[in-house]
Amino acid sequence: MYSIDQVEDPGPATPAAQQHQSQEPLTLNLKEKQQEVNMSRCLISKAEVQGFIERCMTGVGTKAHHARSLAEVLVEGDHRGHYSHGLNRMDMYVKDIQTGICAKDGEPVVEKESAATALVDGKNLLGPVVGNFCMNLAIKKAKEAGIGWVVAHGSNHYGIAGYYSMQALKENMIGMSFTNTSPLVVPTRGKECTLGTNPISVAAPAKDGDSFVLDMATSAVALGKVELHDRRGDTIPEGWGCDAEGKLTTDPKRVLSGGGLVPVGGSEATGGYKGYGLGMMVEVFCGILAGAQYSNHVRTWKVTDRVANLGQCFVAINPENFAPGFAERMSDLLSIQRGLDPADPSSPVLAAGDPERMNMKDCEKMGGIPYHINVVNHMNECAKKVGVSPLLPCDNLISN
Amino acid sequence: MYSIDQVEDPGPATPAAQQHQSQEPLTLNLKEKQQEVNMSRCLISKAEVQGFIERCMTGVGTKAHHARSLAEVLVEGDHRGHYSHGLNRMDMYVKDIQTGICAKDGEPVVEKESAATALVDGKNLLGPVVGNFCMNLAIKKAKEAGIGWVVAHGSNHYGIAGYYSMQALKENMIGMSFTNTSPLVVPTRGKECTLGTNPISVAAPAKDGDSFVLDMATSAVALGKVELHDRRGDTIPEGWGCDAEGKLTTDPKRVLSGGGLVPVGGSEATGGYKGYGLGMMVEVFCGILAGAQYSNHVRTWKVTDRVANLGQCFVAINPENFAPGFAERMSDLLSIQRGLDPADPSSPVLAAGDPERMNMKDCEKMGGIPYHINVVNHMNECAKKVGVSPLLPCDNLISN
Repeated sequence: MYSIDQVEDPGPATPAAQQHQSQEPLTLNLKEKQQEVNMSRCLISKAEVQGFIERCMTGVGTKAHHARSLAEVLVEGDHRGHYSHGLNRMDMYVKDIQTGICAKDGEPVVEKESAATALVDGKNLLGPVVGNFCMNLAIKKAKEAGIGWVVAHGSNHYGIAGYYSMQALKENMIGMSFTNTSPLVVPTRGKECTLGTNPISVAAPAKDGDSFVLDMATSAVALGKVELHDRRGDTIPEGWGCDAEGKLTTDPKRVLSGGGLVPVGGSEATGGYKGYGLGMMVEVFCGILAGAQYSNHVRTWKVTDRVANLGQCFVAINPENFAPGFAERMSDLLSIQRGLDPADPSSPVLAAGDPERMNMKDCEKMGGIPYHINVVNHMNECAKKVGVSPLLPCDNLISN
Repeated sequence: MYSIDQVEDPGPATPAAQQHQSQEPLTLNLKEKQQEVNMSRCLISKAEVQGFIERCMTGVGTKAHHARSLAEVLVEGDHRGHYSHGLNRMDMYVKDIQTGICAKDGEPVVEKESAATALVDGKNLLGPVVGNFCMNLAIKKAKEAGIGWVVAHGSNHYGIAGYYSMQALKENMIGMSFTNTSPLVVPTRGKECTLGTNPISVAAPAKDGDSFVLDMATSAVALGKVELHDRRGDTIPEGWGCDAEGKLTTDPKRVLSGGGLVPVGGSEATGGYKGYGLGMMVEVFCGILAGAQYSNHVRTWKVTDRVANLGQCFVAINPENFAPGFAERMSDLLSIQRGLDPADPSSPVLAAGDPERMNMKDCEKMGGIPYHINVVNHMNECAKKVGVSPLLPCDNLISN
């Protein structure tokens, strides 16, 4: 399977503030999922999760349409199997509004603009509010100018990067989205975290609603994956993280205590400097181009002592401005890969976005998004404090 | 060191047609380089290499300014240490013109255009002719519209991707360049090569002429690196290539006989699907957006039975359209990484482009670009056939 951490992550019910910042594709087969569900999980409908997040957020003073934007991104994260970027993280957003470290009033503002570009001040609003504003602007520009390249400073965590790039699919356009994040990644040859997991997302439409959706952290894996192995007492593969001396290690404890994640590619010998370069590229498009915080100037992960001032970048490209037949070629490109004879007959060759598509299909078959009971309980405690009604009575809980 | 294959590659004097398609950063320290030079290499001035390639190319009927464009890209490849994309590959271009598989008449044509975008027909001209035309156009558009996104079909091998992205630096802009290439990479879970090494290059200007220059294949390593290990009888690290069954192997022979390179990230467990996704992204920007050949429709590497019709993408972004102080932040971003305490005191933390900068400095110290005598002899045979004067009498050859 491509990666299982997103499905397993919600299991231990790690509160949002202890969660990681990058998402990873996933697949568990339906049977495995149902087995997990049967143990200690409950299924909750998308609409219920959406409504729950909205009432928690408005309960602490968030504007209704800001709360809706946030809820949509988080539900989509869970639906796609990126549980570390969904409901599980809601309490972090609630806290950000409650403490005032994230603004609840105002709207993002365009500071500088041309037909194809814009610089946006996110006004320290919720990340999805800034993200939607910028992506809509990029799409509008791409309709008129063929491309829209919009960057924002003054933003916050915006959920899964793929949510924004995928908005372009609705207009039959290519979408891209990038964000910088708190330092968790050690540059090749270094021993200190100076880069975030800085995700890259690129979405491109194919025929009949099909698409390519790349949504990847530029680190080898998400921090949550290392944490999960640590909790289980398992070692990690070489190439995920390093210790405090910058040496690759298979001991997750060493990664978590003073070490860090390594860029995709792993060691220098296997091309880790490429992942490091890609993480820097994201920083160029985000913090540097937007005039936001960047690199190790971004506040420490889990520490919200000051505003995040993240930099983000949103791009839409209209294939109409280029060669005719884009969607047909995209479909063929996807078919070529998916039709390949797999090395292991039980693991078909996939295209980026396929694992998430499989997860959504599984959710539909199961009749909801499966959440670990601990996550549900934790979020309901949060709702109680805010003074809104709980997520659901968990009637769907199956424990056999 | 980051990678040594580029410096060592020219050693065995592999003719261009047997060379690989992706470049890798490098460093050998000056002492090592001089030792190698002392064995069987000769130093040749940049101007001499430039003139030599120009006369060989015009000797077979290439237009003077097309020959100049090609020579400039190849010399820059060697100067930066990417020898697999330099003089060593000249005979391939000579042959492409001689056989008529690559066109020598005409100029690239803009087929479709907006203020910020263009679709170009490369008219099957030499890659650097198409590349320069497109990158100049992208820069012109970025001056007016803030961004220029130009894609070309009907192109050919264009040398190092970084040559084009770096053109933007002269205008204090961010530059990007992407190209698809012949299939040499096996998608994650597959066992057949359906993607090229599809490089990504992003260049961004900092203060005082400093810059960030990412120029990376989306495969873990270049094919030449595997070939080199094979010639030496060495094993390769796990994560470079797979055998004909799609299984990672440490035996270079298995990679070279029916296997293939794997995407950066290596195995699925260490994030190889990310490199695979990035290779697909390059294909979306190139073959798919431009309406060129793509994926396994691109002709087989080393086989020139039909025109290449490669797709390429060139982007320029004007930081003036975004937050003020771009170059200052870029310099700080680079300083943060370069100033890190290295894990190994003898291997300083570098930024993308630094290994190439070090190679150029070494060339200056040595008084020329070092070439293996076999490469020089091979190219002079080529010159003899074309009927032009040889590279140089090799007075600079040092053999002790």
